[in-house]
Amino acid sequence: MTVASDMLDASPVPIEFGVEAVAAAIEACMVSAQACTSCANSSLAEDDVAMMRRCIALCDDCADICTTTLRVLSRPFEADRVITHRMLGACVRMCSDCAEECERHAAHHRHCAICAKACRACARACGELLEAEAFQELEKLAGG
Amino acid sequence: MTVASDMLDASPVPIEFGVEAVAAAIEACMVSAQACTSCANSSLAEDDVAMMRRCIALCDDCADICTTTLRVLSRPFEADRVITHRMLGACVRMCSDCAEECERHAAHHRHCAICAKACRACARACGELLEAEAFQELEKLAGG
Amino acid sequence: MTVASDMLDASPVPIEFGVEAVAAAIEACMVSAQACTSCANSSLAEDDVAMMRRCIALCDDCADICTTTLRVLSRPFEADRVITHRMLGACVRMCSDCAEECERHAAHHRHCAICAKACRACARACGELLEAEAFQELEKLAGG
Amino acid sequence: MTVASDMLDASPVPIEFGVEAVAAAIEACMVSAQACTSCANSSLAEDDVAMMRRCIALCDDCADICTTTLRVLSRPFEADRVITHRMLGACVRMCSDCAEECERHAAHHRHCAICAKACRACARACGELLEAEAFQELEKLAGG
Repeated sequence: MTVASDMLDASPVPIEFGVEAVAAAIEACMVSAQACTSCANSSLAEDDVAMMRRCIALCDDCADICTTTLRVLSRPFEADRVITHRMLGACVRMCSDCAEECERHAAHHRHCAICAKACRACARACGELLEAEAFQELEKLAGG
Repeated sequence: MTVASDMLDASPVPIEFGVEAVAAAIEACMVSAQACTSCANSSLAEDDVAMMRRCIALCDDCADICTTTLRVLSRPFEADRVITHRMLGACVRMCSDCAEECERHAAHHRHCAICAKACRACARACGELLEAEAFQELEKLAGG
Repeated sequence: MTVASDMLDASPVPIEFGVEAVAAAIEACMVSAQACTSCANSSLAEDDVAMMRRCIALCDDCADICTTTLRVLSRPFEADRVITHRMLGACVRMCSDCAEECERHAAHHRHCAICAKACRACARACGELLEAEAFQELEKLAGG
Repeated sequence: MTVASDMLDASPVPIEFGVEAVAAAIEACMVSAQACTSCANSSLAEDDVAMMRRCIALCDDCADICTTTLRVLSRPFEADRVITHRMLGACVRMCSDCAEECERHAAHHRHCAICAKACRACARACGELLEAEAFQELEKLAGG
């Protein structure tokens, strides 16, 4: 059990999409935010910095969006589902963009290879929360 | 001319929805993020803290979402319009929720009255960017 | 009266170094954090990006440190003076470093000229809070 | 090997106090920042919220300071040792304060017990970096 899942489990507020799924998204955001912060700084120090501009710009936004997404997910009390939905949507798209760009540099910069993997994992974990939410909506419509 | 608009104007990257509209949204996010951070802390110190819980929880999320929105808007280079759209959508909803809650306490807590106004202004400025974007899409569809 | 000073003034908690001095530091941090975020992104888009590496790296740290400093200053309730002191110390040094580097590029990049000015103003406003604190300590020692 | 240590190891910049020690501090900050964000929100939802005010206020500052500290540590390129020192100093003090307060509520709120542990671990990991730095300074003075 990780600290994030343990913390959600100890919350007096019920966790709508399940402690494990939300904790997985929080942890993926934590790892991705750190990897992007580090990757932007490493890319800046590379000889081919002119080729790394897009990577750096995307990593900057990705670190911020992942950090805010994990904070919003860590605050279930009085949370608004529409806001969570929009933040997850921004995060999935951002991580996918960033992963795609980092993959282009993965062969020559190991930090990009690691960062791309972290961003893919984050897009997946946040995407799974969006799917769980969509499924729940469908069940409601079906009178479930 | 404010520093935010001056900075956008000095960017080598063209500002899609116009320097003034984007700068207005950035500045509204700056003010709203600070007001929410302050309002959450002041509410915590009030005698009726038990009545202020929802206000504090919303202010916490609102401060983070406004901060990330202003950072994303401050980085036009290599920006992805879909991500900007989703962050603005999260920000408008968050600021509207937060303003509505703060307005309920505005008569007895002046910090809530000021914070509600800052959140309303931010929802408006970010909403105007979303409208400018929707209008541009329509023009494209119309072959404009 | 600005929103930041109005918010501090509406806080149920007394503001140790005076509403105006603390509000001035908060606002200078807000402006500097935004200018640094913008300057890093603009520098990334410049043709001479290889010459702008140090500027970008410092702006990245400066934006984060200014944002956290303004948040800490916006939360007087239960604030610990030693922590405020250390954050102000980090912020003054960071803004001075960043201003110095941006000044080196000010003649050919207008965003660096504006950013340098914002960082200098922030170093000054936060430095004045540190001086007010030092003066208060001296007065205590003198039995004042 | 964790993602944070892997990222530092892949950086083109040498890591002054060693990849393992810096990665340990970064990871401790990641866990502590998330735990504090979660603990503030859970405390807000508790029946005894009036008793939890100081805990919430400290957790709010602690989450921000840990986030900025981990970002600064994740950017070794062009890093200024004095700034790193001051951020670590703010972080150690903040985490110690926060842990102490959370420990007072640990018996009746499990989220406080977990959060206190995360803060203690972060104070320790950041404190070890400060000691490594002090030791290096001593060695220099001794002509080592």
